[in-house]
Amino acid sequence: MGRRPNKRHGTANRPDPNRPRFYGRHAVYAALDNPNRKLRKLFGTHEELAKIVIPDGLAVQYGDAQDLGRLVPADAPHQGLVLEVEPLEELWLDEILLNPDPKAPLVLLDQVTDPHNVGAIIRSAAAFGARALITQDRHSPPESGSLARSASGALEALPWLRVVNLARALDEIAEAGYWRVGLAGEAETTLSEALTPAPQAIVLGAEGEGMRHNTREHCDVLAKLPITRAVESLNVSNAAAIALYAVASR
Amino acid sequence: MGRRPNKRHGTANRPDPNRPRFYGRHAVYAALDNPNRKLRKLFGTHEELAKIVIPDGLAVQYGDAQDLGRLVPADAPHQGLVLEVEPLEELWLDEILLNPDPKAPLVLLDQVTDPHNVGAIIRSAAAFGARALITQDRHSPPESGSLARSASGALEALPWLRVVNLARALDEIAEAGYWRVGLAGEAETTLSEALTPAPQAIVLGAEGEGMRHNTREHCDVLAKLPITRAVESLNVSNAAAIALYAVASR
Repeated sequence: MGRRPNKRHGTANRPDPNRPRFYGRHAVYAALDNPNRKLRKLFGTHEELAKIVIPDGLAVQYGDAQDLGRLVPADAPHQGLVLEVEPLEELWLDEILLNPDPKAPLVLLDQVTDPHNVGAIIRSAAAFGARALITQDRHSPPESGSLARSASGALEALPWLRVVNLARALDEIAEAGYWRVGLAGEAETTLSEALTPAPQAIVLGAEGEGMRHNTREHCDVLAKLPITRAVESLNVSNAAAIALYAVASR
Repeated sequence: MGRRPNKRHGTANRPDPNRPRFYGRHAVYAALDNPNRKLRKLFGTHEELAKIVIPDGLAVQYGDAQDLGRLVPADAPHQGLVLEVEPLEELWLDEILLNPDPKAPLVLLDQVTDPHNVGAIIRSAAAFGARALITQDRHSPPESGSLARSASGALEALPWLRVVNLARALDEIAEAGYWRVGLAGEAETTLSEALTPAPQAIVLGAEGEGMRHNTREHCDVLAKLPITRAVESLNVSNAAAIALYAVASR
């Protein structure tokens, strides 16, 4: 009996590999400041934890930089802070589509899987006042430390909705009054020609393959960026940033 | 005598840790196609090497995916191809500043050290027809596999010049007829207001700190992107992409 492990205690102390573990000051501070974020456990160095107000009731474990390094991917720049969290609760598409605003575009990603790109897109989308990010449930990355780091805190600020079927969501988005602009290298129309004064939904596909056929079919217009033939395409987060800037500047 | 190692043979077979090692199809194909790139050794799987024409005289070593994985950083997506190369020969600033073209901006980076960001900026700069990338010798990353991968082949297309002193280079750039636009979050002028019909030189600093004081002082105008207060700044490669788009669209 005495040798049976205390399960509750064990669970509280052992990091859960299924829970996102954020690291680095930007991502950890933003998550601590977000009242909608459920926090599980904060790991940190004495030096870094001394700088912050630790929320009441949050489990804390002190460690040195090497201890923390073992909680995150190799070479992840944790800056002495690791925070285990629950993913955010999702909104419903209906909520997101209430009161479309020409200054608050939607960003939709079709099978963009790289967490750094998705994180950078979340950062740019929040920066340009986007209403939400919408991805398909499958073939999109979950919340993770590297995604949160690339988002540099913006993961806490931008609503992110995962839908089962992107094409069906695009139907509802059109019904709500959005103009759906898909970025595609082979399009005839340039981005600046494609935008309208209406609320805009920007759709981007994975680098290389681009949007799937059925996603393209659910756009009102396909638009290209004015790039030369020196390269095939831009990095998807760079293309998204340009589209968000073009919407903000139209 | 018989036991003395054959130095030439040994050197040819052993990967040199100081030489850039490119991986993945985009970066390797582009380097193989660049007549100015000195190639040292090509490593690949039978399957991938069967798809390409191997240049005459290039040393080749076959291996399986795991062998190749040991030549590159952990988890680097090598796609069965690793190419050891010499860094490209650099141009002189004088050559780059000949015949400034309003459609071919310069991009200058002040202490941007992340190879993924610098690679993505090279890709966007080549895409928008930039004349060259200019960085300071110190505090900028060397050519590397991860940089070349982020550049997605564009490292072979875009001239990249490293200067000892960025401020002095900015003086020469102004004398050559370029208008120097520094991106700075606290600027009063927006990017679209700051651009002129003249050839443009876009200057970006590291995320967080931004440009150094002396770099700012050597810009003709400081410009901000029209972002909200939801985030402090954009990812530097996203900011560069937006600036290049704004120049191309002015």
